Amino acid sequence: MNQSLILYTNRQHSSPYVLSVYATLYEKGLPFELKTVDLATGENLAQPYSRLSLTSRVPTLTIGDFSLSESSAIIEYLEEAFPPPDFASVFPNDLRLRARARQIQAWVRSDMGILREERSTVVIYGARNPKPLSEPARQAADKLLRAADALIDEQGSNLFGAWSIADVDFSVMLNRLCANGDPVPPKIRKYVERQAGRPCVEKWWSLARS
Amino acid sequence: MNQSLILYTNRQHSSPYVLSVYATLYEKGLPFELKTVDLATGENLAQPYSRLSLTSRVPTLTIGDFSLSESSAIIEYLEEAFPPPDFASVFPNDLRLRARARQIQAWVRSDMGILREERSTVVIYGARNPKPLSEPARQAADKLLRAADALIDEQGSNLFGAWSIADVDFSVMLNRLCANGDPVPPKIRKYVERQAGRPCVEKWWSLARS
Ligand SMILES: [Ca+2]
Ligand SMILES: [Ca+2]
Ligand SMILES: [Ca+2]
Ligand SMILES: [Ca+2]
Repeated sequence: MNQSLILYTNRQHSSPYVLSVYATLYEKGLPFELKTVDLATGENLAQPYSRLSLTSRVPTLTIGDFSLSESSAIIEYLEEAFPPPDFASVFPNDLRLRARARQIQAWVRSDMGILREERSTVVIYGARNPKPLSEPARQAADKLLRAADALIDEQGSNLFGAWSIADVDFSVMLNRLCANGDPVPPKIRKYVERQAGRPCVEKWWSLARS
Repeated sequence: MNQSLILYTNRQHSSPYVLSVYATLYEKGLPFELKTVDLATGENLAQPYSRLSLTSRVPTLTIGDFSLSESSAIIEYLEEAFPPPDFASVFPNDLRLRARARQIQAWVRSDMGILREERSTVVIYGARNPKPLSEPARQAADKLLRAADALIDEQGSNLFGAWSIADVDFSVMLNRLCANGDPVPPKIRKYVERQAGRPCVEKWWSLARS
């Protein structure tokens, strides 16, 4: 039975949600192949991709003939299918910290859309956006930074003790501001820089640059 | 130690994400108190609510001094803290079906925003929206109905065998069209009507109406 893993990404490698799955596979030490889909030409809407992805979006992960889209669902699946102690966990051990990690994941996927628009991930691996934030985007940035101030300690440590996938999601969201040169307090900048140096994240953005 | 559960909802009871947590608590047979927050006056942005909710959104669930926002994170937490066999599960047992249930949950929370706007849940418990769908909303509706056609059988059965929380999320998304009188194929309408008759869902919309 063919159980090889394939992760489908958009061609630019700009999706923070693909990165989140990429990081999960990487941290668990699972071998996988990376394939690109060209969203610009609508490759995601046509067969064969539309047969793999119910939602015609990236990321999609296929394991043999099983395919799954939506990054948070894929990450939960990988955590259940490849659990500790044989594989690294991408969630905190503690029930309540695990809940807080998922809270961060859900939040960065469903809120602050205007900030994700005005500070796309291109500012992380490519060129800065010279336009100042609009007033709604500035309010979203303020909300993000208030939460970060509450969650991040002076040393810029991981959010929940040991590293978790929420650190990837949260630091990438914050890096939209840091990388663009928007004002970010030092402890938050320290956190973001440390997380950006994690091999799975560094490697991902180098793929985006190449 | 006070471990009583409080679920915070918006005043109108219009949030499908609060319903999703409400249904989870209901199906697990957990006693809880429902409290309202007035988003219109910014009650969610001010203390004491902003201290409970990192993201200043509804739903928030508090258990004693532990509080958590973001519906998908809350549901996962409840499933872990109140697991089967002592409590009903809100996810399928099978690993891959559970993944597909989470895929649906993530999808309705992060895609088809224009459809959620033009067919707000008010059309379910209150008045219809007489305006035809805009072209982008019609495309979102088509995408939704194509997925529903692939997922729902001729009998309009649950998505994954036994009922799961994905049935609540998916049927509410579809009910935006059904309740408004927009064209929906019969088997999908049958599915939506059956799910709308589930006591937890029926009770929720009756709260919205009252
Ligand atoms: Ca710390
Ligand atoms: Ca590239
Ligand atoms: Ca069936
Ligand atoms: Ca009411």
